[in-house]
Amino acid sequence: MKFVTFEKDGQRRVGALRDDDRIVDLTPAVGERGLAAIIGAYASLAEPIAAAIETAKETFDVNDVTLRAPVDRPPRNVFCVGKNYHEHAHEFAKSGFDSSAAAGAVPAAPIIFSKPPTAVSGPYADIDVSLDPTGTVDYEAEFAVVIGKAGRCTDADDPWSFVFGYTLVNDVTSRELQKHHSQWLLGKGIDGFCPMGPALLTRDELPVLDDLEITCEVNGEVRQRSPLKNLIFDIPTLIRTIGRSISFEPGDVIATGTPAGVGIGFKPPKYLKPGDIVTVAMSPIGALRNRVV
Amino acid sequence: MKFVTFEKDGQRRVGALRDDDRIVDLTPAVGERGLAAIIGAYASLAEPIAAAIETAKETFDVNDVTLRAPVDRPPRNVFCVGKNYHEHAHEFAKSGFDSSAAAGAVPAAPIIFSKPPTAVSGPYADIDVSLDPTGTVDYEAEFAVVIGKAGRCTDADDPWSFVFGYTLVNDVTSRELQKHHSQWLLGKGIDGFCPMGPALLTRDELPVLDDLEITCEVNGEVRQRSPLKNLIFDIPTLIRTIGRSISFEPGDVIATGTPAGVGIGFKPPKYLKPGDIVTVAMSPIGALRNRVV
Repeated sequence: MKFVTFEKDGQRRVGALRDDDRIVDLTPAVGERGLAAIIGAYASLAEPIAAAIETAKETFDVNDVTLRAPVDRPPRNVFCVGKNYHEHAHEFAKSGFDSSAAAGAVPAAPIIFSKPPTAVSGPYADIDVSLDPTGTVDYEAEFAVVIGKAGRCTDADDPWSFVFGYTLVNDVTSRELQKHHSQWLLGKGIDGFCPMGPALLTRDELPVLDDLEITCEVNGEVRQRSPLKNLIFDIPTLIRTIGRSISFEPGDVIATGTPAGVGIGFKPPKYLKPGDIVTVAMSPIGALRNRVV
Repeated sequence: MKFVTFEKDGQRRVGALRDDDRIVDLTPAVGERGLAAIIGAYASLAEPIAAAIETAKETFDVNDVTLRAPVDRPPRNVFCVGKNYHEHAHEFAKSGFDSSAAAGAVPAAPIIFSKPPTAVSGPYADIDVSLDPTGTVDYEAEFAVVIGKAGRCTDADDPWSFVFGYTLVNDVTSRELQKHHSQWLLGKGIDGFCPMGPALLTRDELPVLDDLEITCEVNGEVRQRSPLKNLIFDIPTLIRTIGRSISFEPGDVIATGTPAGVGIGFKPPKYLKPGDIVTVAMSPIGALRNRVV
């Protein structure tokens, strides 16, 4: 199943995206709940959703609606992972922007920080770089896990049982704020600096992740490209590390880190500037395509 | 006005705490909303709340109910400030637990990190140190600001206009996790590691903050004591720094940092252990009193 959140007639709705690129409006089955709430009640909603798709009469062309982030309002800050690809860890350490670089380029344990829900924006929303007074905005293409189950993940639990599905995010970052403030929230948490989507694919849609390739292009030039098997800390490890002591909530999002090729990996750095188009893509999830303003 | 959130007959309610330590149940005026939602709708609720207090017939003794954190479910992660008192900045840098110590003991700019809403617990809730497998749990007494207004704080805005009120938090921390994971979310975000309360005082209740003294005692031994004038970055500066690029939401909480005297300031470190009682207090807000289990 592919879920999308969209606006039609000024109203936010959750839909199922079919392979013919038409959306079945799930509002009759789920009401006005957002996708995080739907995921939280999925045990009782899976059947009505399936029935709604089966019997749908009216559908919308995905190009006729405005897509929002699938989880447009996560229950709390998005969990994010830093330096989770070897080559990126080295390029970041060498860039001079890593305030924790003394600890070594490749981390000994997952580095977890967060982006507030107010940073989350749609797959085609603009990125307003004027919100970073330092003019050092960078892109980070990331594969993201959406959590379906509440509670802590103990040693006895299967970490995969917490996974509801997957989506993409662009972990847009002000490099100077990231460095200047030591902890990364201010550099990473700016309004609209977390484009997400375009769809959420349930776990069964992507049974094997290793060879899925995430890419980032700026104005058509490929900057990042990596298969998921290059993650330093894999998805079960991330879920265990966070969930050992922090209870998960349905709709939580974990952005798993970005591969090499970010703007500060270049000399001089290639920051985003108004007019740029940043495209984060992975087949079969789709593409985020955000204009910089 | 002093707001409290409490449980009575198994139901969560928001109340006004009177000077005679009796609580006026505000449910008839505000419904079943939590305090964050009440703050968000305060423009239309202030009058019904005042009327409910005026005409209250039944009141509860504060000792007959279970107090929860006043903002028991913030809209997103609690904003927290690191190393915001000079003496604490030095003790932390010297402790060996500061993964960003290379940047200097006293920060050049506010260090902002977050604790998930699942960390928030009541003023008398237990702190479960078994959730930290490293056995290095420490206390941090902090004065906290509760935000009342949505939106960004531009240079033209008065930062004080964003302040709805004040409360206390204990920014309980696993020192080894804080250090090991470089970014502080995992060491700071553990379930129940953010006791809050006991009351939220509206801004008018505390017109002058400088000489208000926050203290922390462990088993009756004073460990931390400082007036708020010792903050390195004051409240307007913190609000401007966060709100410049991150839109505030009503009910947001900013924990402003902890003074010197934390457990890792001692040699050897004095970690919290089961049976300890940690008391964070400030007159006239009251005291958090949490048992370590």
